[in-house]
Amino acid sequence: MVKVKIYIEYKEGVEDPEALTVKKSLSLLGFEGINSVKISKVYEMEIEGNKNSARKKAVEICEKLLANPVIHRYEVNVD
Amino acid sequence: MVKVKIYIEYKEGVEDPEALTVKKSLSLLGFEGINSVKISKVYEMEIEGNKNSARKKAVEICEKLLANPVIHRYEVNVD
Repeated sequence: MVKVKIYIEYKEGVEDPEALTVKKSLSLLGFEGINSVKISKVYEMEIEGNKNSARKKAVEICEKLLANPVIHRYEVNVD
Repeated sequence: MVKVKIYIEYKEGVEDPEALTVKKSLSLLGFEGINSVKISKVYEMEIEGNKNSARKKAVEICEKLLANPVIHRYEVNVD
Protein backbone atom coordinates (compact mmCIF):
# COMPACT_ATOMS: atom_id res chain seq x y z
CA MET A 1 0.00 0.00 0.00
CA VAL A 2 1.41 3.37 -1.04
CA LYS A 3 0.38 6.79 0.23
CA VAL A 4 0.05 9.25 -2.60
CA LYS A 5 -0.56 12.98 -2.38
CA ILE A 6 -1.97 14.79 -5.37
CA TYR A 7 -1.79 18.58 -5.40
CA ILE A 8 -4.05 20.42 -7.79
CA GLU A 9 -3.97 24.14 -8.32
CA TYR A 10 -4.91 26.69 -10.95
CA LYS A 11 -2.30 27.51 -13.57
CA GLU A 12 -0.65 30.88 -13.39
CA GLY A 13 -2.86 33.48 -15.02
CA VAL A 14 -6.09 31.51 -14.64
CA GLU A 15 -8.66 33.29 -12.50
CA ASP A 16 -9.86 31.29 -9.51
CA PRO A 17 -13.41 32.42 -8.73
CA GLU A 18 -13.36 30.82 -5.28
CA ALA A 19 -10.17 32.62 -4.30
CA LEU A 20 -11.61 35.91 -5.54
CA THR A 21 -14.73 35.30 -3.44
CA VAL A 22 -12.65 34.55 -0.35
CA LYS A 23 -10.62 37.71 -0.89
CA LYS A 24 -13.76 39.79 -1.28
CA SER A 25 -15.41 38.19 1.76
CA LEU A 26 -12.33 38.88 3.87
CA SER A 27 -12.47 42.51 2.92
CA LEU A 28 -16.22 42.66 3.67
CA LEU A 29 -15.54 41.06 7.07
CA GLY A 30 -13.08 43.82 7.83
CA PHE A 31 -9.81 41.93 7.38
CA GLU A 32 -7.18 44.26 6.01
CA GLY A 33 -3.75 43.64 4.59
CA ILE A 34 -4.56 40.36 2.80
CA ASN A 35 -2.71 40.84 -0.46
CA SER A 36 -3.36 37.56 -2.20
CA VAL A 37 -5.32 34.36 -1.80
CA LYS A 38 -4.51 31.17 -3.66
CA ILE A 39 -6.41 27.94 -3.18
CA SER A 40 -5.24 24.46 -3.97
CA LYS A 41 -6.61 21.04 -3.25
CA VAL A 42 -4.81 18.02 -1.89
CA TYR A 43 -6.04 14.50 -2.50
CA GLU A 44 -4.47 11.85 -0.29
CA MET A 45 -4.96 8.31 -1.49
CA GLU A 46 -3.87 4.90 -0.38
CA ILE A 47 -3.17 2.92 -3.50
CA GLU A 48 -2.33 -0.76 -3.65
CA GLY A 49 0.87 -1.85 -5.34
CA ASN A 50 4.39 -0.44 -5.45
CA LYS A 51 5.52 3.18 -5.65
CA ASN A 52 5.94 3.16 -9.42
CA SER A 53 2.56 1.71 -10.23
CA ALA A 54 0.89 3.97 -7.65
CA ARG A 55 2.46 7.08 -9.16
CA LYS A 56 1.41 6.00 -12.65
CA LYS A 57 -2.13 5.40 -11.45
CA ALA A 58 -2.23 8.77 -9.66
CA VAL A 59 -1.14 10.60 -12.81
CA GLU A 60 -3.84 8.77 -14.78
CA ILE A 61 -6.39 9.70 -12.11
CA CYS A 62 -5.43 13.36 -12.42
CA GLU A 63 -5.76 13.30 -16.17
CA LYS A 64 -9.01 11.38 -16.30
CA LEU A 65 -10.86 12.72 -13.29
CA LEU A 66 -9.37 15.30 -10.96
CA ALA A 67 -7.62 17.93 -13.03
CA ASN A 68 -8.79 19.96 -15.99
CA PRO A 69 -5.64 20.35 -18.11
CA VAL A 70 -6.87 23.65 -19.53
CA ILE A 71 -6.86 25.41 -16.18
CA HIS A 72 -5.12 23.20 -13.61
CA ARG A 73 -1.64 21.98 -12.96
CA TYR A 74 -1.05 18.97 -10.78
CA GLU A 75 1.76 17.37 -8.86
CA VAL A 76 1.97 13.81 -7.59
CA ASN A 77 4.02 12.99 -4.50
CA VAL A 78 4.61 9.40 -3.46
CA ASP A 79 5.73 8.72 0.10
CA MET B 1 4.62 40.64 4.02
CA VAL B 2 4.24 37.13 5.38
CA LYS B 3 3.29 33.99 3.46
CA VAL B 4 0.75 31.96 5.35
CA LYS B 5 -0.56 28.51 4.48
CA ILE B 6 -3.86 27.39 5.93
CA TYR B 7 -4.72 23.69 5.73
CA ILE B 8 -8.34 22.73 6.19
CA GLU B 9 -9.54 19.16 6.34
CA TYR B 10 -12.47 17.18 7.68
CA LYS B 11 -12.19 15.96 11.26
CA GLU B 12 -11.70 12.26 11.81
CA GLY B 13 -15.03 10.50 11.60
CA VAL B 14 -16.78 13.18 9.58
CA GLU B 15 -17.95 11.96 6.20
CA ASP B 16 -16.62 13.92 3.25
CA PRO B 17 -19.19 13.70 0.44
CA GLU B 18 -16.71 14.93 -2.15
CA ALA B 19 -14.15 12.29 -1.25
CA LEU B 20 -16.84 9.61 -1.39
CA THR B 21 -17.85 10.81 -4.85
CA VAL B 22 -14.25 10.74 -6.05
CA LYS B 23 -13.82 7.22 -4.72
CA LYS B 24 -17.01 6.06 -6.42
CA SER B 25 -16.08 7.77 -9.69
CA LEU B 26 -12.67 6.12 -9.65
CA SER B 27 -14.28 2.76 -9.29
CA LEU B 28 -16.77 3.52 -12.09
CA LEU B 29 -13.84 4.59 -14.31
CA GLY B 30 -12.22 1.23 -13.70
CA PHE B 31 -9.49 2.25 -11.27
CA GLU B 32 -8.86 -0.56 -8.83
CA GLY B 33 -6.91 -0.75 -5.61
CA ILE B 34 -7.70 2.77 -4.39
CA ASN B 35 -8.32 2.11 -0.72
CA SER B 36 -8.98 5.57 0.61
CA VAL B 37 -9.41 9.12 -0.59
CA LYS B 38 -9.05 12.14 1.66
CA ILE B 39 -9.39 15.70 0.46
CA SER B 40 -8.06 18.82 2.07
CA LYS B 41 -7.80 22.40 0.97
CA VAL B 42 -4.85 24.72 1.17
CA TYR B 43 -5.23 28.49 1.25
CA GLU B 44 -2.05 30.43 0.62
CA MET B 45 -2.21 34.06 1.60
CA GLU B 46 0.16 36.99 1.64
CA ILE B 47 -0.60 38.96 4.74
CA GLU B 48 0.92 42.29 5.69
CA GLY B 49 2.68 42.65 9.01
CA ASN B 50 4.96 40.39 11.01
CA LYS B 51 4.77 36.64 11.54
CA ASN B 52 2.90 36.87 14.82
CA SER B 53 0.20 39.21 13.63
CA ALA B 54 -0.16 37.25 10.38
CA ARG B 55 -0.64 33.98 12.24
CA LYS B 56 -3.21 35.59 14.52
CA LYS B 57 -5.08 36.99 11.54
CA ALA B 58 -4.99 33.62 9.77
CA VAL B 59 -6.48 31.85 12.78
CA GLU B 60 -9.24 34.47 12.95
CA ILE B 61 -9.87 34.02 9.21
CA CYS B 62 -10.25 30.27 9.73
CA GLU B 63 -12.68 30.74 12.55
CA LYS B 64 -14.76 33.45 10.93
CA LEU B 65 -14.78 32.38 7.30
CA LEU B 66 -12.95 29.31 6.08
CA ALA B 67 -13.50 26.50 8.55
CA ASN B 68 -16.64 25.10 10.10
CA PRO B 69 -15.55 24.09 13.59
CA VAL B 70 -18.18 21.36 13.74
CA ILE B 71 -16.68 19.38 10.89
CA HIS B 72 -13.27 20.84 10.03
CA ARG B 73 -9.91 21.04 11.65
CA TYR B 74 -7.37 23.60 10.48
CA GLU B 75 -3.69 24.24 10.70
CA VAL B 76 -1.87 27.50 10.11
CA ASN B 77 1.72 27.49 8.87
CA VAL B 78 3.71 30.70 8.69
CA ASP B 79 6.84 30.77 6.51
